[in-house]
Amino acid sequence: MTLGAAPDPPDGVREQALRARTAARALAATPRAVKDAALAEMADALDKQAREILEANAADLLNAEGADMSEAMLDRLRLTDERIAAMADALRELIGLPDPVGEVVRGSTLLNGLQVRQVRVPLGVIGIVYEARPNVTADAAGLCIKSGNAALLRGSASAHQTNRVLVAILATALESAGLPGDAIQLVGAHRSTVADLLTARGLVDVVIPRGGAGLIEHVVSTASVPVIETGVGNCHVYVDDAANLVMAEAIVVNAKTSRPSVCNSAETLLVHRQIAEEFVPRIASVLQAAGVTVHGDPEVVRLASDVLPASEQDWATEYLSLDIAVRVVDSLVEAVEHIARWGTGHTEAIVSDSASAIGRFVAGVDAAAVMINASTRFTDGSEFGFGAEIGISTQKLHARGPLGLPELTTTTYVVTGAGHIR
Amino acid sequence: MTLGAAPDPPDGVREQALRARTAARALAATPRAVKDAALAEMADALDKQAREILEANAADLLNAEGADMSEAMLDRLRLTDERIAAMADALRELIGLPDPVGEVVRGSTLLNGLQVRQVRVPLGVIGIVYEARPNVTADAAGLCIKSGNAALLRGSASAHQTNRVLVAILATALESAGLPGDAIQLVGAHRSTVADLLTARGLVDVVIPRGGAGLIEHVVSTASVPVIETGVGNCHVYVDDAANLVMAEAIVVNAKTSRPSVCNSAETLLVHRQIAEEFVPRIASVLQAAGVTVHGDPEVVRLASDVLPASEQDWATEYLSLDIAVRVVDSLVEAVEHIARWGTGHTEAIVSDSASAIGRFVAGVDAAAVMINASTRFTDGSEFGFGAEIGISTQKLHARGPLGLPELTTTTYVVTGAGHIR
Repeated sequence: MTLGAAPDPPDGVREQALRARTAARALAATPRAVKDAALAEMADALDKQAREILEANAADLLNAEGADMSEAMLDRLRLTDERIAAMADALRELIGLPDPVGEVVRGSTLLNGLQVRQVRVPLGVIGIVYEARPNVTADAAGLCIKSGNAALLRGSASAHQTNRVLVAILATALESAGLPGDAIQLVGAHRSTVADLLTARGLVDVVIPRGGAGLIEHVVSTASVPVIETGVGNCHVYVDDAANLVMAEAIVVNAKTSRPSVCNSAETLLVHRQIAEEFVPRIASVLQAAGVTVHGDPEVVRLASDVLPASEQDWATEYLSLDIAVRVVDSLVEAVEHIARWGTGHTEAIVSDSASAIGRFVAGVDAAAVMINASTRFTDGSEFGFGAEIGISTQKLHARGPLGLPELTTTTYVVTGAGHIR
Repeated sequence: MTLGAAPDPPDGVREQALRARTAARALAATPRAVKDAALAEMADALDKQAREILEANAADLLNAEGADMSEAMLDRLRLTDERIAAMADALRELIGLPDPVGEVVRGSTLLNGLQVRQVRVPLGVIGIVYEARPNVTADAAGLCIKSGNAALLRGSASAHQTNRVLVAILATALESAGLPGDAIQLVGAHRSTVADLLTARGLVDVVIPRGGAGLIEHVVSTASVPVIETGVGNCHVYVDDAANLVMAEAIVVNAKTSRPSVCNSAETLLVHRQIAEEFVPRIASVLQAAGVTVHGDPEVVRLASDVLPASEQDWATEYLSLDIAVRVVDSLVEAVEHIARWGTGHTEAIVSDSASAIGRFVAGVDAAAVMINASTRFTDGSEFGFGAEIGISTQKLHARGPLGLPELTTTTYVVTGAGHIR
């Protein structure tokens, strides 16, 4: 394992994609039992070769410290025995999930006797472009294999040595299980490979970016291959005048503080004017006691202590930290309009005991998920009972919300006749 | 109605899209009965104002003749009383179809008591970019309204006067039914409006191009908004060595000749070598008797009369005319490889009585539809029993195959709790 910049892969993204396509064709016809056995091999191999992974990770960490990376970033990059064991366990959890491939989504026999079945098939070659966390390497590879797809992984340059070792281990495990190692490939970490991946039309079937707003914007504006946007979550909680304020307090605190760095945490609280006098001082002090910095509009500044004045930038920001923007609104309509202007279509929550208010909120907001009297933090494939996910789609095409195994497939119509002509 | 080039619309695509968004929000909350009443109004208005439509169409035709447009193109542009009545009838047929909006796609109550429902909602604002046929204007508008979406229509410049009158009539009918006229808007016909539509991220939810390969390639490479590719169909019929040759002959003739100008007609015939000696001369002469020009590989040239030698260009071409490329293959595997190389993922057919051959063909080809002992011509929303369609998607994301009403929607997860937190 060389330290410093990783060498280029022996060939370019195009050649890798061609080999991935061949591997994908083999995987598409592979029965579930073989895929599940491969996942078990992959998990065991990670456990057995943990030391090798940690050595590569130590080299990445050394470079990152030399490059003055922040402690938060270093923490995302860092692997430990526990984190490697968690990666292996995540692969084992996929074994228990149903195989989406072959599922008949709908089917019927037409008047003329033609039998039409719409059947799930793999997408083919999936490109994943992601930032520091190396666990995405194993998670994405496992989801792709289980759903019969080949994965072209483009991780961050800072994690490249870790990723190279991970992918080598996973690909070797695939081969031990009788599947093509080319089904999991790491793309070179130099800058041009992202663009190569994003423009490989006809070779790459879809690219899924996992990371911050900047990465996603770059991918969407560069790509000519289809993209599934994920993850940017400027999520709101609206506390209606008909809310149970004890419930509202618990939901707001949970949505903001239970894990502030993730996309389904709340960033803005909207409070109906009717209850602002009572609720704003109370929620501000509870949040502040939990270490949250409150940014508020003039009304919130007036009603509560230690509130920083909020600017438009605060309404637009996905803090991903212990900060929250708070605004008093005159009505549910104003809350819905605020969300339409500043939301990212991820998750919007209402706390209310009014059925008509709930109905108007659900009809009015346009998001992957709408939470009624529940924390925004529930938008998650595992919480929804779908098992592992590769991200939360915030776009409207193909899949919206948690991207689990069925969302990594497409369908084909298989039509059976007996010499039918039109 | 001015003759010659149509004037620019009073404002640009961006402003039109903003108004379309407002209209879309109203439409999303409109119950089926109101949408169906609007479709009836739209249909009646076309019937009543047929004369006005024909006058505008005559002006377009005059310009087109002056510009030396081919007779085939003129025919696509031309409206008649019958064609206007057919447009109106197509709108009326939508009334009988189920409303996809509000359909609960899946739902469950989680262990913790949270109720999760995945519900169909409209996409929002749909851009349609299309070529000469003015009937697309009414068809697309009707499908969008029924599915609760606003339509931004960018038709061809040559049909612009016809389209302006059609859209004015349809939007007025919408308003008579109490719906916002901005839900159906025609975009200016100057060149820049296509790019404006394709890059209106955040304003336009999806663009669907309807037209030839050149249009689709342009749209895909220019767009930063999501695109659903439609329609390019380089469809193959593979006649296996285990085929019933009487059935094969009927299917090939139907797939090629019943309507050569559409995307689900066959363009290439692949014949297994074992039966080539018998089948190739026979099918060539039957096709030639039906007016088809046969382009063949050297083996086909040897076996049949009056065959033009085929080049790689022939395997790649979607003729859309009474031409067919014919190749003798050594095996089913070679047929599948030919299709993988030259197919466009639309419809691929096998004629065979061998269950194992059929299984290998279905598993091996990667297309929106696979026909077993049936003509390629059956890939069609109406034939599949789905009702009207806006095109055939040949991409893997979101929708593959006929794009009917459900494919013009997305979903949202509506999650109901009672104060649930994580």
